[in-house]
Amino acid sequence: MRMYDLIMKKRNGGTLSREEIEYMIAEYTAEHIPDYQMSAMMMAIYFQGMSAEETVALTMAMAHSGDMMDLSGISGVKVDKHSTGGVGDKTSIALTPMVAACGVKIAKMSGRGLGHTGGTIDKLESFAGFTTGIDAGHFVRQVNEIGVSIMGQTADIAPADKKLYALRDVTATVDNMSLIASSIMSKKLASGADAIVLDVKTGSGAFMKKEQDAFALAKEMVTLGNMAGRKTIAVVSDMDQPLGRAVGNALEVMEAIATLRGEGPEDFTRLCMTLGTYMLVAGGAASDEEEARARLNRVIEDGSALKKLAEFVEAQGGNPAAVYDTALLPAASIVEDIDSVQDGYVCHIDCDEIGICSLLLGGGRETKESVIDLSVGLVLHKKVGDAVRTGEALATIYANDRNKLNAAKERFLRAYHFADDPVAADSLIKGIVRE
Amino acid sequence: MRMYDLIMKKRNGGTLSREEIEYMIAEYTAEHIPDYQMSAMMMAIYFQGMSAEETVALTMAMAHSGDMMDLSGISGVKVDKHSTGGVGDKTSIALTPMVAACGVKIAKMSGRGLGHTGGTIDKLESFAGFTTGIDAGHFVRQVNEIGVSIMGQTADIAPADKKLYALRDVTATVDNMSLIASSIMSKKLASGADAIVLDVKTGSGAFMKKEQDAFALAKEMVTLGNMAGRKTIAVVSDMDQPLGRAVGNALEVMEAIATLRGEGPEDFTRLCMTLGTYMLVAGGAASDEEEARARLNRVIEDGSALKKLAEFVEAQGGNPAAVYDTALLPAASIVEDIDSVQDGYVCHIDCDEIGICSLLLGGGRETKESVIDLSVGLVLHKKVGDAVRTGEALATIYANDRNKLNAAKERFLRAYHFADDPVAADSLIKGIVRE
Repeated sequence: MRMYDLIMKKRNGGTLSREEIEYMIAEYTAEHIPDYQMSAMMMAIYFQGMSAEETVALTMAMAHSGDMMDLSGISGVKVDKHSTGGVGDKTSIALTPMVAACGVKIAKMSGRGLGHTGGTIDKLESFAGFTTGIDAGHFVRQVNEIGVSIMGQTADIAPADKKLYALRDVTATVDNMSLIASSIMSKKLASGADAIVLDVKTGSGAFMKKEQDAFALAKEMVTLGNMAGRKTIAVVSDMDQPLGRAVGNALEVMEAIATLRGEGPEDFTRLCMTLGTYMLVAGGAASDEEEARARLNRVIEDGSALKKLAEFVEAQGGNPAAVYDTALLPAASIVEDIDSVQDGYVCHIDCDEIGICSLLLGGGRETKESVIDLSVGLVLHKKVGDAVRTGEALATIYANDRNKLNAAKERFLRAYHFADDPVAADSLIKGIVRE
Repeated sequence: MRMYDLIMKKRNGGTLSREEIEYMIAEYTAEHIPDYQMSAMMMAIYFQGMSAEETVALTMAMAHSGDMMDLSGISGVKVDKHSTGGVGDKTSIALTPMVAACGVKIAKMSGRGLGHTGGTIDKLESFAGFTTGIDAGHFVRQVNEIGVSIMGQTADIAPADKKLYALRDVTATVDNMSLIASSIMSKKLASGADAIVLDVKTGSGAFMKKEQDAFALAKEMVTLGNMAGRKTIAVVSDMDQPLGRAVGNALEVMEAIATLRGEGPEDFTRLCMTLGTYMLVAGGAASDEEEARARLNRVIEDGSALKKLAEFVEAQGGNPAAVYDTALLPAASIVEDIDSVQDGYVCHIDCDEIGICSLLLGGGRETKESVIDLSVGLVLHKKVGDAVRTGEALATIYANDRNKLNAAKERFLRAYHFADDPVAADSLIKGIVRE
């Protein structure tokens, strides 16, 4: 078999066999196929697409390119959750304790990732001492004991995907539905969970700007998961404005804690309830969605979800006291309101731009080496549909550097758009994609 | 400027500016742009194509990526000739002395190339001592003195093209008209001639299998040459069966010599006359095609074309006596006829297969390191349209190894196809492409 022939075949619109895809991924991972052939292949795939069978084969080949996590030491159904990411997405921090408190085992791997705010791991590091650098033994034991653990993704989970994604990232071959789906799902499959609930974002702050693209990606991933024998369901949700009100690491942790107290923002609470419902049903902790919803409400009302977060934080070396006293979380030295300079109704928020404000404040990572300032960020007081008067606070900004604050503030004001007449916000949940 | 943005632009169907193309080629030649980005770009170009302006910019950028040959030391109009190559194509060996004998200056650069038979340089090395490894001073002086020289292409002629072609060759991005045209023309422009006559082949033994593709390539190259200020014309000619009768290095030299004596095969002689006509007109040695044809006929009849070949061979270190006594050229030890095993009319010859027979005999180069056996090859006695009886010789085979001969013979017989009724051969000259 020669890579040249495979490129030619795909370029000419042919379909690669499972054997051909396995050969390509194994040889690429082993560095027997050079990057310049693989990037030509990726561009050919961009133009010619891949069939469902090809996508499954690619996903499985990448999942098997390194370690396949063995979660057999954990009793019961293990459920994983994945979000395609966005601005203000602190879902895992509130959702995993909620679901674990209902008795579903959460064994989740997370990455740090580049982005406007940190990833889930960065956010959790707002708890002093917290670490995801635990070994597989600790991970399995912790899930058995308290029902939840989040582990940093090890280098040997789907190394082919890591290598391939890095290449696609510099050769303008990222945005192909099959390639995106196989990249996400290869890691999920290698991570070993029995069931996977996906949160696919759409809108100005999401990777998928268009709703139809988000649904297409959701369908592709659900098909992949189910073909690989994992019960998979996807929720397509809005990311046309930031999720909840907090954007920034410690600020988002505070909002997640508020949500576990039943005091969270309406949209964020609703998303957690929706995702949690499917996780409970998939995990066998509820026989239907109604029962799942009732159980989730109960663990919030009786404080057991919040208690689960404290247990989880403590089990991974963090200070659980901060769960009950958020003043112990990193705090910024400068706190100021950003006031509106006009009257009107908020009709649109450039979601990515709000993320960039957080980045400008130091809350995100521009390169792999960047050190994140966990304390900075924004809390929005006005979201789409809200009426605003001149001088009223649109948001509160948290910073440690006056120059950075000024730059972020200027950018923030340009991200808000106003209408004279009332506007309705987009619905949060766009739809559910099942097998 | 970032290569990533240029790949994205082309991928999305955009048009690259001259500045962008110049940046890309300069940075790629300097190894600041990695192969994996360039191969993604080449695949994007394969799918999205290039405009005429983009193709010109690419050609000029590649031509200027190394030395631009300075032929100002040669008086008069310098004419170059280029063939896209095929089986039995010994045109340069007969044509350049013919044209030079008519007073047109031929300053030609040639490559060795991989192929079924050697390139022009290999064929000329059939003259013991002949070398194309001469320096620019010798080259210019020789053209001024005897009117013709062929120099080996130096490493620094269009190095960007060399690097890019090698990459395209292993990434399935060769067959795009604009890329092929710019590759050929960048070298021709850097080689410095004032006028260029192109011989674009079409048929089973050509790179361009389809006639319409050959015309498209011819048009693209003629446009490029003229836009770059060089008078350029293309002849599209048949390569659906081998050109002439000889296939193999020394055998082809003998056929070229026979042609200069007026005793060459009809098709090959006609092609030389056609190309020579346009070279004479372009070089100002004839005012029209009729006059050019008459002059070419005269230099064959009076022996001055043959004498010019001897001068040319001698000026580059070869033995001129072999021009008059071809027994001095390399000769094979085994010479046998290949007899037909059936009656009929030759209706098709798999042209590439005949080339492979020569390769199997040792007459071509499989890798850059291969050593060519100059003496081996085939002389065809039957071509398309000819009537054949069982037992009649289809060809004579020249070999130095019985096993190789047997392998070539078997393959040769399968390359000939017969019909019961008379068939007409395709016309040799398919058309002329001018500005």
